Amino acid sequence: MSPQLIDLYDLEGKIVVVVDVLRATSVMVTALAYGAKNILPVATLEEAKLHLGNRDSICAAERGGDKVEGFPYDNSPFSYMCDNVKDKCLVMTTTNGTLAITKSRTAEDVIIGAFINIKAVANYIIKKNQDVIIHCAGWKGKTNMEDTLFAGALMDLLKGTHDMACDTPHIAMNYFESVRLSLKETIKNSAHAKRLNKLSIEKDIEFCATLDEFSVVPKLEGDKLIPVHMS
Amino acid sequence: MSPQLIDLYDLEGKIVVVVDVLRATSVMVTALAYGAKNILPVATLEEAKLHLGNRDSICAAERGGDKVEGFPYDNSPFSYMCDNVKDKCLVMTTTNGTLAITKSRTAEDVIIGAFINIKAVANYIIKKNQDVIIHCAGWKGKTNMEDTLFAGALMDLLKGTHDMACDTPHIAMNYFESVRLSLKETIKNSAHAKRLNKLSIEKDIEFCATLDEFSVVPKLEGDKLIPVHMS
Repeated sequence: MSPQLIDLYDLEGKIVVVVDVLRATSVMVTALAYGAKNILPVATLEEAKLHLGNRDSICAAERGGDKVEGFPYDNSPFSYMCDNVKDKCLVMTTTNGTLAITKSRTAEDVIIGAFINIKAVANYIIKKNQDVIIHCAGWKGKTNMEDTLFAGALMDLLKGTHDMACDTPHIAMNYFESVRLSLKETIKNSAHAKRLNKLSIEKDIEFCATLDEFSVVPKLEGDKLIPVHMS
Repeated sequence: MSPQLIDLYDLEGKIVVVVDVLRATSVMVTALAYGAKNILPVATLEEAKLHLGNRDSICAAERGGDKVEGFPYDNSPFSYMCDNVKDKCLVMTTTNGTLAITKSRTAEDVIIGAFINIKAVANYIIKKNQDVIIHCAGWKGKTNMEDTLFAGALMDLLKGTHDMACDTPHIAMNYFESVRLSLKETIKNSAHAKRLNKLSIEKDIEFCATLDEFSVVPKLEGDKLIPVHMS
């Protein structure tokens, strides 16, 4: 339910799905779907700055929902639907998503989930036939709506193959069930959407709450996320 | 959603409702309803032991769901439905509930909630007309089902007077709505119920998931919880 709770779980030998629906993991999936070679998630602005000006990279930095000055790319998936990303390494630092990735590294597999690739993520997990932990990035440690809804939606796709090991999947799945017919409207009323009350954000949220736009699953290999294409 | 997340919230000037449905806060409400003078929640077994043999006190200790050897009282509400508790101080230490109380002390008011006094808790809050944080004790830091359901049920009673300041009340309220017609059955399938798979526990769970048995609200005054009787 939060990166502040992930240390309570044993990640060894498991698949961890990191999710930050608004908007880090939606951006990651979009960038790889549009041909980015890989993604380097970094924790600090200083690390990200080292890659500015590198012709093989494009650099994105977000703090508190806004683009950080001096960085060319922001945290909107629409910024990556273009040829600029093709064959590039996307260097990226965000408020919550990159921390959640860092805190997942002891897992056997770390993959990236968002509504826009949720079925591909489910297929990846089912094919691997392994235990899975869904790691919600949340907001500055707090549990949030959109990542919990993703967890519930993914549980719904895995209920034929996976049992629930604690109460939180039950909470997430029932929560998702209760709003599934009004998913976009619900997420538009999330605390995050209210923090980012701008016209462009509404378009982002609409897109980030869309299911199965892409069949790519970003997967951590060393320090970088590489694309795994699911059929 | 967990005592490990409570530090992210500013408790100052607010009412904090501590809930540990199975079973610490259900016991506290029952003991005060049956005439206990007050309750002294303590963090450690060592502190609790200091009160053993004191004729004005009765001592209860639970760890991992079981009664601790050497202590006369356990963590079942039925153990407190008798004359023994009358006018006594209940000294109590439990795995999760007492920690949640300790971590709530900076609030203006700390009160104790359970399904068995939920309407009294709602009335207390509405009468005080203050902001409120529902602090779920959970299980060893993890979010659990029954405390989240209590939070959702309480939110449901407060929705006419209180707005939601973040996403978690929305999650809890929708979750409660989705299972409200099968509340007891749902809680009987919780991780905690499975951990305590004993006949006597089923009876406890049945009772702890009953609404509005009592109109008493335990309230922290100094180190002790005293009864506030709501009409």
